[in-house]
Amino acid sequence: MRKTRKTSAKAAAPEAVDLLVRGGTVLSLDAENSIYGDGAVALRGDRIVAVGPRRELERRCRARRVLDCAGRLILPGLVNAHTHAPMTLFRGVSDDQELLTWLQKYMFPLEARFVSPEFVRWGARLACWEMIASGTTTFADGYFFEEEVAKAADEAGLRAVPGQGIFDVPTPDARNAAEGLARAERFLADWQGHPRVTPALCPHSCYTVAPETFGKIRQLAARYGALVMTHLAESQGELAMVRERYGTTPVRHLAACGALDANLTVAHCVWLDDEEIGLLAARGVGVVHCAESNMKLASGVAPVPRMLEAGVALGLGTDGPASNNDLDMFGEMATVAKLHKVHTLDPTALPAETVLRLATRGGAAALHMESEIGSLEPGKKADLIVVSAEGPNALPAYNPASQLVYATRAEAVETVVVDGRILMERRWLRTLDTEAIRRHAARFARRITAALPD
Amino acid sequence: MRKTRKTSAKAAAPEAVDLLVRGGTVLSLDAENSIYGDGAVALRGDRIVAVGPRRELERRCRARRVLDCAGRLILPGLVNAHTHAPMTLFRGVSDDQELLTWLQKYMFPLEARFVSPEFVRWGARLACWEMIASGTTTFADGYFFEEEVAKAADEAGLRAVPGQGIFDVPTPDARNAAEGLARAERFLADWQGHPRVTPALCPHSCYTVAPETFGKIRQLAARYGALVMTHLAESQGELAMVRERYGTTPVRHLAACGALDANLTVAHCVWLDDEEIGLLAARGVGVVHCAESNMKLASGVAPVPRMLEAGVALGLGTDGPASNNDLDMFGEMATVAKLHKVHTLDPTALPAETVLRLATRGGAAALHMESEIGSLEPGKKADLIVVSAEGPNALPAYNPASQLVYATRAEAVETVVVDGRILMERRWLRTLDTEAIRRHAARFARRITAALPD
Repeated sequence: MRKTRKTSAKAAAPEAVDLLVRGGTVLSLDAENSIYGDGAVALRGDRIVAVGPRRELERRCRARRVLDCAGRLILPGLVNAHTHAPMTLFRGVSDDQELLTWLQKYMFPLEARFVSPEFVRWGARLACWEMIASGTTTFADGYFFEEEVAKAADEAGLRAVPGQGIFDVPTPDARNAAEGLARAERFLADWQGHPRVTPALCPHSCYTVAPETFGKIRQLAARYGALVMTHLAESQGELAMVRERYGTTPVRHLAACGALDANLTVAHCVWLDDEEIGLLAARGVGVVHCAESNMKLASGVAPVPRMLEAGVALGLGTDGPASNNDLDMFGEMATVAKLHKVHTLDPTALPAETVLRLATRGGAAALHMESEIGSLEPGKKADLIVVSAEGPNALPAYNPASQLVYATRAEAVETVVVDGRILMERRWLRTLDTEAIRRHAARFARRITAALPD
Repeated sequence: MRKTRKTSAKAAAPEAVDLLVRGGTVLSLDAENSIYGDGAVALRGDRIVAVGPRRELERRCRARRVLDCAGRLILPGLVNAHTHAPMTLFRGVSDDQELLTWLQKYMFPLEARFVSPEFVRWGARLACWEMIASGTTTFADGYFFEEEVAKAADEAGLRAVPGQGIFDVPTPDARNAAEGLARAERFLADWQGHPRVTPALCPHSCYTVAPETFGKIRQLAARYGALVMTHLAESQGELAMVRERYGTTPVRHLAACGALDANLTVAHCVWLDDEEIGLLAARGVGVVHCAESNMKLASGVAPVPRMLEAGVALGLGTDGPASNNDLDMFGEMATVAKLHKVHTLDPTALPAETVLRLATRGGAAALHMESEIGSLEPGKKADLIVVSAEGPNALPAYNPASQLVYATRAEAVETVVVDGRILMERRWLRTLDTEAIRRHAARFARRITAALPD
């Protein structure tokens, strides 16, 4: 494969490319937010070679294959920067409960009883189906038996940052932190260097993982150059626990542990003061806003406009399907755009363009992958989606960002390309055995239903 | 056609029915919230004849036609109790603006220039397409040239409560209130007695319609037995205007005008005190909660849990597609269920079952039509929808209400029946010329785009 390079429009001989996605409105989401009304994107191997007006790219490129997208929107694949993919199998199992009831009566006993490599495998496969079908091309995950999530993402063709979950307490895959760390190290060793699957560590939180364990996790991460992901400042309950135990706030506690750095990605960040926001920005910590989960679990509303103003590297995540209840980044965008308007009583807060950036470039930045993904630019990974504008809710089309954020539903995603490979074409899924996934999901659901408390 | 009657399961000879919708999970949304796991609904003419277990209904009924719905959910059609359907043609034209900029720079000039019978006709047809395709069977509307909305709903086969808009200021269809009232009377006279389209009056608000005009509207409504719909207590700006002009709050002002009664349906009700909530409940006023519009326009969060506690007749509405930006009641349900949890910091607020009731029975009650629609019960109008559970986001299925409210997107609506007639079958629209609608929407969009301010 030839090395990616930016070619000039004046190049005499046309350049060979593998795939030319052409004819729709291209939203590059590059630094200038370039939009091409009748645009095209040329891909070679796993990389984007060129982005621009269709006619120019047709002149410059000789494509092995062409994907005609007239009347459609072409944009970077969405980045779901925080989820727990295998929890698809717990979707809707115990909604609308008090948090402690939800955790102690339902989730913890169900996880202890059902979470196995097989559960994680089928849950993650179901999640990959749902994510591809809704336009996500990269997801960051945290759960148990995370090698099964990595395998599921690999098979599905998705880009992923699976994070092996680490707790101090016993979990379905480790009796204690030492076992968890050993398993995490095997996971990093096994998956390092994979072109799409970037193994990471996921200590659950600073109230379930002691500072000493956090220290060992940081050392392990440093040895492998791996990302650390955790939950942070999600609820008032967490604040109270951390204050009681450490006499400070979750962000300051993690800073004191030496864990706040550009190798860290934290989810939620609902309860922050301005000094903490400044600290997250200054240390280059990636933050993932999970609006729908924070709403459904009544955690609170994260100070997103203030984080953006402070320059925090901010992306969006659905959180796990037990607390959202889906992996739909279009739904998440629509919610994010509206939630912060009503929360600040400012209808200009988080315009559609900003929200679309959060769901693409922002997620890439939050995962410290902004040089590789998050926009359609030459040299970046060939991850893109094609969105139909056929449905009645897409008519008329005045502003593509408004259309995508406020009126598009996930079913409008027609085609999904990751690493230059077409994973879904005109809604036809090319990498998944959806009938097998359906069968196994039903099988787990029967067992889980039988085990539910009254 | 025979008169509807409830037959006994022991009846000897099977009863002739027109349509048996059978084999899915039937959510009746009746007073006991009866759910039939393998259920059926029998329809004759425009009415529901029976609802119950499939085997029982198969024994009792001899159906001219059967709709097999195994694995699907069967529920009452959704009621969009507040919208401005023709504004589909302004969808996304000027989002994320300050309210006054939005109104004065965009919406008012665009309406003055473009709103004509033809605009209303095509905008309403587009809206009918979007509503049928997303499971709405009844909508309540307020706009100009409302006879065109009535015609569009009639052609599409939808049930509708179109409300002729009335202002004191000049509008696209009347130079003053007197003209508006005259046109409104013609509208009521022309459409009264229609089996599906119930004409109504829609004075815009108590800050754009003077008390004397409101008085005349009430008299006119009383003569025709027509419903009056208006906007009420939507924003802090409205509160300030009403306080300055009348020295009181919008609800108390309408009460003083004698307009607060069981013939009234009011949209929004964001800014209410407990006494006002009590007044709305005691007077039997229908209230329509428009969560997504209130979020997007930064109006505020309506006190829905307190209204429910007080026994207010409460439904849901999308509001117009220029301020939402869609007519998607599934999206609205998902938002409503989550918004009030985070707003009250109570994860048990508005459980999925409650939200599903608001979107069906609640909307019927808010429109004072609860004896006719809103649930699947013998004797009620034959309005129902069939929802697929095929998509990955529908797997697994533990709780149908959770599934519908938190994880179902509108595209899962397969089949829509209104008044006993199938309007959409397995996503095939049977009453609309969607290509003509698409063409005319694009034509209006071109003209509107050319007229937009920079």
